[in-house]
Amino acid sequence: MPTVLSKLRVIEEKTGKKFGQSLLVSVRSGAPLSMPGMMDTILNLGLNDEVVQYLQSSTNNERFAFDAYRRFIQMYGKIVERIDGNKFEKLIEEKKASRGVKSDVELTASDLKELVHEFKQLFKAESGKEFPADPNKQLRHAIEAVLASWNGKRAVEYRRFYKIDDKMGTAVNVVAMVFGNTGENSGSGVGFTRNPSTGERKLFAEFLINAQGEDVVSGARTPFSIEEIEEKMPDLFEQLSRIGGLLERHYRDMQDFEFTVENGKLWMLQTRTGKRTAQAAVKIALDFVSDRMISDEEAVMRVEPAQLDQLLHKHIDPEAHMDVLVRGIAASPGAAIGKAVFDTNRAAELGKLGESVILVRRETAPEDIHGMILSQGVLTQRGGKTCHAAVVARGMGKPAVVGAETLVILDNHAQAGDVVINDGDILTIDGGTGDVILGPAPLVDAEISDDLDRFLTLADKFRKTGVWANADTPAMVAKAIEFKAEGFGLVRTERMFNAKIRLPFVQRMIISSTTEDRKKWLEKLKEFQKKDFIDIFFAAKGRPVVIRLLDLPQHEFLHAPASSELGELIAKKLPSLKEDNPMLGHRGIRLGMTYPEIYEMQAQAIAEAKVAVEAKGIEVRAEIMLPLTSEAKELSTLRDLIKRILPDSPVGTMIETPRAAVTAGEIARYSDFFSFGTNDLTQMTFGMSRDDAEGKFLVKYVEDKILPNNPFEVVDKKGVGRLMKIASEDGRLENPRLEVGVCGETGGDPESIEFFINEVGVNYTSCSPYRVPIARLASAQATIKRRSAEDTKAKYTTV
Amino acid sequence: MPTVLSKLRVIEEKTGKKFGQSLLVSVRSGAPLSMPGMMDTILNLGLNDEVVQYLQSSTNNERFAFDAYRRFIQMYGKIVERIDGNKFEKLIEEKKASRGVKSDVELTASDLKELVHEFKQLFKAESGKEFPADPNKQLRHAIEAVLASWNGKRAVEYRRFYKIDDKMGTAVNVVAMVFGNTGENSGSGVGFTRNPSTGERKLFAEFLINAQGEDVVSGARTPFSIEEIEEKMPDLFEQLSRIGGLLERHYRDMQDFEFTVENGKLWMLQTRTGKRTAQAAVKIALDFVSDRMISDEEAVMRVEPAQLDQLLHKHIDPEAHMDVLVRGIAASPGAAIGKAVFDTNRAAELGKLGESVILVRRETAPEDIHGMILSQGVLTQRGGKTCHAAVVARGMGKPAVVGAETLVILDNHAQAGDVVINDGDILTIDGGTGDVILGPAPLVDAEISDDLDRFLTLADKFRKTGVWANADTPAMVAKAIEFKAEGFGLVRTERMFNAKIRLPFVQRMIISSTTEDRKKWLEKLKEFQKKDFIDIFFAAKGRPVVIRLLDLPQHEFLHAPASSELGELIAKKLPSLKEDNPMLGHRGIRLGMTYPEIYEMQAQAIAEAKVAVEAKGIEVRAEIMLPLTSEAKELSTLRDLIKRILPDSPVGTMIETPRAAVTAGEIARYSDFFSFGTNDLTQMTFGMSRDDAEGKFLVKYVEDKILPNNPFEVVDKKGVGRLMKIASEDGRLENPRLEVGVCGETGGDPESIEFFINEVGVNYTSCSPYRVPIARLASAQATIKRRSAEDTKAKYTTV
Repeated sequence: MPTVLSKLRVIEEKTGKKFGQSLLVSVRSGAPLSMPGMMDTILNLGLNDEVVQYLQSSTNNERFAFDAYRRFIQMYGKIVERIDGNKFEKLIEEKKASRGVKSDVELTASDLKELVHEFKQLFKAESGKEFPADPNKQLRHAIEAVLASWNGKRAVEYRRFYKIDDKMGTAVNVVAMVFGNTGENSGSGVGFTRNPSTGERKLFAEFLINAQGEDVVSGARTPFSIEEIEEKMPDLFEQLSRIGGLLERHYRDMQDFEFTVENGKLWMLQTRTGKRTAQAAVKIALDFVSDRMISDEEAVMRVEPAQLDQLLHKHIDPEAHMDVLVRGIAASPGAAIGKAVFDTNRAAELGKLGESVILVRRETAPEDIHGMILSQGVLTQRGGKTCHAAVVARGMGKPAVVGAETLVILDNHAQAGDVVINDGDILTIDGGTGDVILGPAPLVDAEISDDLDRFLTLADKFRKTGVWANADTPAMVAKAIEFKAEGFGLVRTERMFNAKIRLPFVQRMIISSTTEDRKKWLEKLKEFQKKDFIDIFFAAKGRPVVIRLLDLPQHEFLHAPASSELGELIAKKLPSLKEDNPMLGHRGIRLGMTYPEIYEMQAQAIAEAKVAVEAKGIEVRAEIMLPLTSEAKELSTLRDLIKRILPDSPVGTMIETPRAAVTAGEIARYSDFFSFGTNDLTQMTFGMSRDDAEGKFLVKYVEDKILPNNPFEVVDKKGVGRLMKIASEDGRLENPRLEVGVCGETGGDPESIEFFINEVGVNYTSCSPYRVPIARLASAQATIKRRSAEDTKAKYTTV
Repeated sequence: MPTVLSKLRVIEEKTGKKFGQSLLVSVRSGAPLSMPGMMDTILNLGLNDEVVQYLQSSTNNERFAFDAYRRFIQMYGKIVERIDGNKFEKLIEEKKASRGVKSDVELTASDLKELVHEFKQLFKAESGKEFPADPNKQLRHAIEAVLASWNGKRAVEYRRFYKIDDKMGTAVNVVAMVFGNTGENSGSGVGFTRNPSTGERKLFAEFLINAQGEDVVSGARTPFSIEEIEEKMPDLFEQLSRIGGLLERHYRDMQDFEFTVENGKLWMLQTRTGKRTAQAAVKIALDFVSDRMISDEEAVMRVEPAQLDQLLHKHIDPEAHMDVLVRGIAASPGAAIGKAVFDTNRAAELGKLGESVILVRRETAPEDIHGMILSQGVLTQRGGKTCHAAVVARGMGKPAVVGAETLVILDNHAQAGDVVINDGDILTIDGGTGDVILGPAPLVDAEISDDLDRFLTLADKFRKTGVWANADTPAMVAKAIEFKAEGFGLVRTERMFNAKIRLPFVQRMIISSTTEDRKKWLEKLKEFQKKDFIDIFFAAKGRPVVIRLLDLPQHEFLHAPASSELGELIAKKLPSLKEDNPMLGHRGIRLGMTYPEIYEMQAQAIAEAKVAVEAKGIEVRAEIMLPLTSEAKELSTLRDLIKRILPDSPVGTMIETPRAAVTAGEIARYSDFFSFGTNDLTQMTFGMSRDDAEGKFLVKYVEDKILPNNPFEVVDKKGVGRLMKIASEDGRLENPRLEVGVCGETGGDPESIEFFINEVGVNYTSCSPYRVPIARLASAQATIKRRSAEDTKAKYTTV
């Protein structure tokens, strides 16, 4: 921009002050800060053939000037003109190859000058226009492109994953540049005020000499670790530590910052609340409480309940002594088993089909985000703990191993020494240890850490609703108790029929032509089930156990007959049991109405088990739950039958048909409790079979925002939720002592839990044992949120 | 009862007055009168060995005395002690055979004396006790038995069929006897003040000489017809006519009465409002209006809408010239085709399984009622127009041919000359002509009579809501217009895909792998569909036509490929389309969301057809209806697409998923109309597939009164109905111009129609063409009922 530059020179001459490199600016998205790496940034803006000369002369550093220039053309071309970044990278690789060097920093000023020339040619060939020399134009286009990146694919996908409102929008910051690429006395780095993996109260940073910020994030070169910084650059370490402390006290949270050292001087570029693993989040929250920087309540609100899932992930069994193929950097905890897939799009496709996939990439970039979302885990050859793959995987709670340098990752396979990993080969990765194993490795369950235990105990102080677990076996009951489940909201009895040794009895029972005959086989089944119930009652140690009587349709039990005679009898019976839409068929309480002797047997088995366990001094609190009720008279009929056998046990029903919800007032007359089965209720409310929908149109519905979420994962508040509110209100109006719970899958989802507690008014939620800690935290947060909403309301309504 | 009798003799001697036969009483149920023949009656009560002597001496009629005695033992034995009536009948048959006579009346006094003896032995053998001689005991047990008959199987079944409240209960009348069996100068009869089949304004009665009432009803002997009475007993005829007129003026309705002539003197035993065919009901109502005996409104309320179904039944095509096997008495109009079944229980069983059955019996008795309910029609060898079979069949609106005397009906087959009818042979009966044909005969549709037309026009005066029809073809549209349908609430488009010649195009379209390819095949289908729509628009003559776009899942169209190449392609595609629960699968608007080009094609075909028909000067009012919506965004997306092609056509949706009902407020923003699809809405609300339920547990649910009705036939008010009310209220609140209709099967059911109009507040109901007259009447009645309920309310709230 000759005219501006001429004017500047005049000013420089008049004032004796040099503008030099401060003539250049960076253009970056200013908000929201919670979307790291998702928005475009353009550095070194303002360069053209004339300005680069001025830059060179004013800094007396030709290499720096052309390094900045080539970076600018590449970034501008990629972001403003959407030119494939790999094409620029390819030119760099060729240049390095022709010079016989391995790293960008080894390229000379004249190499870079040539690259600038080649980049401009590439720019013209790809965009059909000359690279713009006018800095005003550069700036305007850059601002537009950065704003536009808000609607770019990766930003949209990121927001969808983290449920960030699309309408929030972004600002653009235009700031004078400082340069980390002026030579060996400069560099760029990123840091965290505490360890983002462990939460350890210790500065954590990485620093790359003679580099700009994107070099650090991309993971192309391995940076100095915090230990190396402390050892080799004690001044920098001291400054970062001091500033980190200042930032933390100011923002009252752990910070993630970027910095640049320009010719020995430290510049802080940006700070924001740092992403962290669940483990770190828990530890940091506890430490901040200890330091009296935040209240107990704030600490509880600081950890995303869904994130705890990470801590409850399995890891590779250390006793298994598997052969470790390579060991990379343990970047995001948890173990994952899946097919190695080298292409992001393919990983996304397979993931959508429900396959377990490990995305294997040299390094990941924001373009890979959709593949990461749909993979079980991520493995990269390059990068450190702050590289893109590591940051994103931690944010998503997915296992990741990064910087597995001994693995050479190519387009469609990878090589580790002699071993070749082909597309589709099964890998196990453990993001807690960095281990990568060929084939599936045995995994073991997580145990709750002391920190997590302390943190959840803190959360429990605020919780007003019960957290129960769905558990079908004594082992699940025990696991749930370890996680402090307070009851068992769904004990299914199907497995008590399905065990191989019992199946022939079940089958004989089903094909019985008379009630007498059926009762004979049921009598045998009762003995089995009695044992099952005894085990469960012992394991539950006096906590309430909600037993759901048989739900499945009979034909589900008619597979694999034990003898050919039985097979023939079954074949004869089968056609009369076949159903076009088995989900809407002869199952649940309808079976109980047709064959009351089945429920009678189950009630009898429970009664006998109760006596046996109580005889050993263990309290038994069995509650009997009937599935699929759609009419109060069903319940009144079978309640009487069960009460005759178990006079002291509460008898209730699942609310899982829409009719049960809208006739809940009447149903409540015969129910001691309701338990929402959100799975079936969602299926019937939408008229949508989960199995038939999820693989097909439902994914597209969520992608196209026809629905905000998969309603089988997050409760559909408008439809299913409204029915739940109707049911709960009408039920309680008719029977004020009615206990209301949720035992569907959404009972373990934090967003749903908040709705259930604050809108439906449940007494407890019940979920799978491994989600009990999540539910404890989510329930506490829901109660805190409601109270704070009520406080706000009170404030504005009291004059 | 010797002591009482001795006292009576003393009184007789003192007063010179003879008690004679007036010593005996009848014990019968006093209420409700609307259950003819369903309750037990015991005649001639008070007889014992001593009283019979007194009766004989005081009447000087030994035959009469023992005839009364044997009748009493039989009735008492049957009703009080539940002894099988056939065992008594068998003794009578044996007696007749040994005497070589055909009729009871030919048995002599000594035959009857012997029978009394044999009956008493039978009584003792069966009940284990002596026949009670004490009239007080007889009376007490008889009263208890009559009261108990309220809960007898046939009474319960009758009430279920006619929806009479079980709690209504009964009284018992004990009345002095008059005797029709004292000789040739006595007899019993039943009559109607007008013809109960045609409504003709002419006395209608039957009279049996020397008989008691049950002889007439059983149809065992053929009575004098009204013509014979007029000719041979002009005095009786004149008296009956005069009393009939008196009764009608008093009760303001046609009467059904019983009478007995005792030694030449007429006694009226009972009168009640008479059961009548629909044809008679219509004619009688119109005649009462002409005579100013009732108001228009009362006339409209006098005919049961469901009864009109009879008039709209098919009859045997007179052009077909079928061989008539036998001709009986045309006892209840309409034709039926079905398997001949000779056993009532078997008929009921097969009927439950959905088979068409003609119940063939020598005569029917109250015990046959469950078989009649589940048969398509009834054929008897004996009886006249007032016999049990005739009365019950008319009440139920089922075709019946009775008194087909040339047919000899045996236990499991029947003989007509040389022809044998075996169990399971197909019969056609026409209850309008009395014809019985072996094999299936071609049937033709009913046409609306002048009387019915006048009556419905009267009803239309009171109607405030539209009556529309569901019609898929121009012929159905024309038929519905004949019945005065005002619009077409459901025009399905599936047949426009399913026709044989089109199927290959549809199949190619479904297996297309690209949108372009799919559009190519759709373009061809468009031409077919355009023609279909042209035909329908012409037939509809400017009435609104609500076209439902494709609803069925794709796999429904993949049967019967036209070529093996196409077959292979289909076989490849099929697995990906298979669904576990197709009702809850990828169908309806979900198809439209995935393949908008299908709906686009249909809209385009409609648009082009509209232009073509309007060019001929015929108005076209096409409305576009989308099926299976569960989320407002589905509708907003596809509404835009359709509005671009058909800017002036209303676009609306079916409300058939529970979610659509509870989110109707939002959906109404994008809907010009709602149409309730009660079939799917019922299935999803209950979580009950109609096909899987009706053949299985649903019948039992209705029988056991778990549900008051089959909810697919009569809308479930508590559940489905509540959702409908929510949808209609929320929808109108959001969009006050919203039109609300019903197009599900219940749209043709009177009870449901009343609910839809008075509780849901629909603008119109839509039903199959043949139910349009029923819907017109039901709608008028609903409006009258609401107004009268409001009047009552106003009366009690205005002081």
